[in-house]
Amino acid sequence: MMGEGQRAYVHGYDDREADRLRDQAGTLADLLHHDTGYPEGSAVLEVGCGVGAQTVELTRRSPRAHFTAIDVSADSVGAARAAVERAGMRNVGFRRADLFSLPAGWTFDHVFVCFVLEHLERPVEALEALRGLLRPGGTITVIEGDHGSATMHPAGAAACDAIDALVRLQRAAGGDALIGRRLYPLLVEAGFAEVAVSPRMVYVDASRPQLVDGFTRRTFTAMVEGARDGALAAGLIEPERFDAGIRDLHRTTEPDGVFTYTFFKATARSAAGQEAGAPV
Amino acid sequence: MMGEGQRAYVHGYDDREADRLRDQAGTLADLLHHDTGYPEGSAVLEVGCGVGAQTVELTRRSPRAHFTAIDVSADSVGAARAAVERAGMRNVGFRRADLFSLPAGWTFDHVFVCFVLEHLERPVEALEALRGLLRPGGTITVIEGDHGSATMHPAGAAACDAIDALVRLQRAAGGDALIGRRLYPLLVEAGFAEVAVSPRMVYVDASRPQLVDGFTRRTFTAMVEGARDGALAAGLIEPERFDAGIRDLHRTTEPDGVFTYTFFKATARSAAGQEAGAPV
Repeated sequence: MMGEGQRAYVHGYDDREADRLRDQAGTLADLLHHDTGYPEGSAVLEVGCGVGAQTVELTRRSPRAHFTAIDVSADSVGAARAAVERAGMRNVGFRRADLFSLPAGWTFDHVFVCFVLEHLERPVEALEALRGLLRPGGTITVIEGDHGSATMHPAGAAACDAIDALVRLQRAAGGDALIGRRLYPLLVEAGFAEVAVSPRMVYVDASRPQLVDGFTRRTFTAMVEGARDGALAAGLIEPERFDAGIRDLHRTTEPDGVFTYTFFKATARSAAGQEAGAPV
Repeated sequence: MMGEGQRAYVHGYDDREADRLRDQAGTLADLLHHDTGYPEGSAVLEVGCGVGAQTVELTRRSPRAHFTAIDVSADSVGAARAAVERAGMRNVGFRRADLFSLPAGWTFDHVFVCFVLEHLERPVEALEALRGLLRPGGTITVIEGDHGSATMHPAGAAACDAIDALVRLQRAAGGDALIGRRLYPLLVEAGFAEVAVSPRMVYVDASRPQLVDGFTRRTFTAMVEGARDGALAAGLIEPERFDAGIRDLHRTTEPDGVFTYTFFKATARSAAGQEAGAPV
């Protein structure tokens, strides 16, 4: 993957990563998706469906909408199709496709993009391309994390260094692990209207054991650990320091520990009235 | 004030600071207080009422509860009394008092503590003292900020340095400007039961002009600016760097800027059954 440079997906594609993405979706589903529902008969494009973690949530929450889910990875598309079939949902079609070269004539009522922009070198161009797929008045929903939002108790200086190494690794691959806070200006720059951002903080202390395990350990810490080989190979951090950072993160899962992380969710509308053929 | 060492209130006591505290309360009132209401006839102690910013909100939202508001500063108590009178509320009595040496025999149904623990060298002892004032089954509500939660776009390295100087200044005075994330372990250590923490993020972009002005400029940036003299006198940062940090913060108020900050609100119950005279 490293040979692909800016197109590399820093989190990797192995089975453990697929498990992590599904754990993440299960734990965070309500927080991230409780207010996303699409009307009966509407056509929704999910961009970058990955292994289908969000696809299952989306199709379940809007069983009468019709989804099209795409991903650049054929393996991911296959995994997503299998996940949706296991979940018993039938309102989605899959296709291997790059969002920058979609079939001519595709149009949708709504577009959904989750944990994708963080990996792109040109997120505004991606958003512009997606806006071009929307029918007048159509909406986009974007969800991204922001690794700079992580706070913890006890304070972990090594954990901050390990997280920073992941941020720099992703930046070297053309992405931005701090993109969550930028959704508003990105969507405005891409020409969307009615941009509205709401933060979704995951707050974890010992009174929430499901999140201690499902989010702090199996989602966030697992994601940082997954970048170990890449960060060390790139010389971004010493192995001892990285491993101390992982211990810092595990330390926050003890009874007096606290960990917080914030996702940002944005909705926006294609600028109705500015579409081709409509009066300006 | 500096002569008092750990007791110094780093934000200062001047008129501008009083305005800042009232601006802050007006902007954040719903976010912080919408879910705080006390029953008719209940006795509530507000600890560290300052100039009355929260007192006005509390007494308005629970007009049939009876409040006692205390502060160590006689000037603050006077200002708080005047603010509550202007607001037309009569359900509160004021007293200059130190929470570590309250009159014998005081008991309350509920205690409310907002932006106070961050200034104390021994927050757990303070919480233990307050727990001793609660009738069995009584509750405490604690609200604190956390300067480590601030994120911004564009990223401002100088702003982070200026904020860090404020954090170190407050630490030198015995306080902790990163205390928000610690409310859960502090309350547990102080012997409270049913500790529940909820984060309250203030998310500010150009679509929310009232928050751009009321929070980013007039609350957070004003607070950091208020620490300039102290931070420079203590040699914690160079003046040029500090001023560049203030410019970074103002930069986030431009149309493509974003600023976020998180307050933490905790509620807990005195461990009923463990009070003096009750069966253990």
